[in-house]
Amino acid sequence: MELEFLGTGAGVPSKQRNVTSIALKMLDERNEVWLFDCGEATQQQILKTAIRPRKITKIFITHLHGDHIFGLPGFLSSRSFQGGEGTLEIYGPKGLKEFIDISLKVTDTHLKYQLKIIEISQSGVLYEDKGIRILCDTLDHRIECFGYRVEEKDLPGELQVEKLKALDVPAGPIYKKIKDGETVTLPDGRTINGLDFVGETVKGRIVTILGDTRQTPNILTLAQDADVLVHESTFKEAEAKMARNYYHSTTAQAARVAQKANVKKLLLTHISSRYLGFMVHDLQKEAQAIFKESRIMQDFDCVTIPLVKEK
Amino acid sequence: MELEFLGTGAGVPSKQRNVTSIALKMLDERNEVWLFDCGEATQQQILKTAIRPRKITKIFITHLHGDHIFGLPGFLSSRSFQGGEGTLEIYGPKGLKEFIDISLKVTDTHLKYQLKIIEISQSGVLYEDKGIRILCDTLDHRIECFGYRVEEKDLPGELQVEKLKALDVPAGPIYKKIKDGETVTLPDGRTINGLDFVGETVKGRIVTILGDTRQTPNILTLAQDADVLVHESTFKEAEAKMARNYYHSTTAQAARVAQKANVKKLLLTHISSRYLGFMVHDLQKEAQAIFKESRIMQDFDCVTIPLVKEK
Repeated sequence: MELEFLGTGAGVPSKQRNVTSIALKMLDERNEVWLFDCGEATQQQILKTAIRPRKITKIFITHLHGDHIFGLPGFLSSRSFQGGEGTLEIYGPKGLKEFIDISLKVTDTHLKYQLKIIEISQSGVLYEDKGIRILCDTLDHRIECFGYRVEEKDLPGELQVEKLKALDVPAGPIYKKIKDGETVTLPDGRTINGLDFVGETVKGRIVTILGDTRQTPNILTLAQDADVLVHESTFKEAEAKMARNYYHSTTAQAARVAQKANVKKLLLTHISSRYLGFMVHDLQKEAQAIFKESRIMQDFDCVTIPLVKEK
Repeated sequence: MELEFLGTGAGVPSKQRNVTSIALKMLDERNEVWLFDCGEATQQQILKTAIRPRKITKIFITHLHGDHIFGLPGFLSSRSFQGGEGTLEIYGPKGLKEFIDISLKVTDTHLKYQLKIIEISQSGVLYEDKGIRILCDTLDHRIECFGYRVEEKDLPGELQVEKLKALDVPAGPIYKKIKDGETVTLPDGRTINGLDFVGETVKGRIVTILGDTRQTPNILTLAQDADVLVHESTFKEAEAKMARNYYHSTTAQAARVAQKANVKKLLLTHISSRYLGFMVHDLQKEAQAIFKESRIMQDFDCVTIPLVKEK
C-alpha cells in the first residue's frame, strides 16, 4: 500500500502544486489503484508517474468543487482511449452523475468499459469485499463533503507446516483445526495448542482520506487509530479565522485531531498557494510541534504504509 | 499579433504534447488575448507562459470533443478566482452552453465576471468591431466543427504633416481631405494630390485557425490569402485512409490546401502521439516538400505574425 500525491494545492493550480488528487496504490495487494478526487490535469500528472489508468478501478470524490472533479471527464475518456476495459466505479456526492453524464454526452464520448457512478446517500459502509472495507462520513464544508476510511482486513498468520512436520504431526484435516488456533489431541495422545503453530497475524492497515473541511467530530471517528490520516491544511494556525470562514482547516487543527485520534502518521495536503518555500517548512514545523509524525505533502510525494505483524 | 501554442496533441495528452489550445495574443493591438479551444490543463499550460487569464476576452471552440473543451470549466473558475472581472465571450457549437452551465452549477461556482456563451447558428461573420472581423464556417469532422478566420482591418496610412508644413500648406479642415486622398486646391492656387501626403497603408492580417477536419472546400475559403493558416495534421500522408476514417487530415493534405489558398505560412498542430522525435521531423519535411513555409508546432511555440506595409 502506497499513497502517491498527484495534486496537493488548494482551489486553483499553481506552478508548484496541481489541484487535488491522491492515488492509493495497492498493486501488491490487489493489483489496483484507487483515486481520491480528480482535479483538472490529474491525467497529465499520472503521465509523469508509473500509474496506469486501466489499473484505476475506483475513484472516490470527496465533494463537487471544481478543483476536485474537473479532471474526471478527461480521465474517463483517456482511460477508454488507452484500452482500459475493466469496470470503473466512482463514488461521490449527489450531482456527480449529472456532471459526468452531461460531459460524456456533450462530447459524444462512448466509453469502452462499464462505468458505475454511485452517489452516496448515507454515511457508513460504502463498499466491502474479503480484503477491504470502506466507510464514509460527512465533513463540514461549504457544500456536502465526505471523508473516507479504508480498512484493510487482518490477515491471519500462516500455518507453520515445517514446525508440525518436525514434530511428526501427521498431515490431514487436523491441520485446519491447528490453523484456526484450536487445541487438539493427536492420535498418539499428545496435545497441541494451535496458537503455537500459527505465524503472526498481519494487521490490516487503516487509511483515512478527508475532503475539505472545518473541524468536526466526524473527523475523529473517521481517523481513529488510522495508520495514515490525510488531512487538508489550507491555512496556517494564524489564519484560523479565515480557515473557518472558508470552511477549511489549519495545520495545527489537523495536527491536534491526528493526536487525539491516535493515528500513526499525518499527511497534510490542499495547501494554499500563498505558502511558498520556507513558509511550507514553517507549516510543517507548526504541525510537528503538536504531532511529531506530520508531513506537508508535495506533488508526486509517495508514502508507503508498512504492514505491521503482531502475535 | 502572435500565436502561442498551448497544446499541440491529438485526442489524449502525452508527455510531449498537451491537448489542444491556441492563444492569439493581440496585446499591442488591443490588449487582449483570444483562445482557440481549451483542452484539459490549458490553465496549467498558461501558468508556464506570460499570458494572464484576465486578458483573455474571447474563446472560440471549434468542436465539442473532450480534448478541445475539458479545460473550460477550470479556466473559467480560475479566471474568476484570480480577479478577472471583464466580460468573457465564448463562441462554439450547440451544446457548449449546457456543458458550461452544468459544470458551473454542479460545482456551485459563481463567476465574478459576465460570461456570454454564443452558440453558433450559422456560418459567416461571427463578430465585428472597428479593428477586426471574425468569420466562421463548418468543417468536415465526426461532429459539428468550425474553422475561424480572423481578419484584421487595414490601417490607413498616416497624414504626413511635416511634409505639408514644409510646403507651407496651412492647417485646417483641408488636412482631412488630404488625408482621405482627395486632390485639393490651396488658397494660393496650388493643387495638391492627397495621396502624395499619406503614408503607407498597413494591411490587416488574416489568421485562419481550423478545428479537426477532413479535407473540405470550406477550408479554402476560410484560408484564402491568410497570413497564417493553423491546420490540424493528425496523421502522415501514408495514413491517409486512417485520417479519412477518423475525420482527420494528413500533413500533405494540409500543405496542399495551404498552397492552393495562397497562405503565407502553414502551422501544423493536433499531432498524433504516435509521432515522436525524428518522426515529427519527417512530418515537417513531408509538408515542406509541398509547401515550403510549413512548420509542425510544439507546445509553447510562439509565432509572430508581422505587419506588412504597402502603398
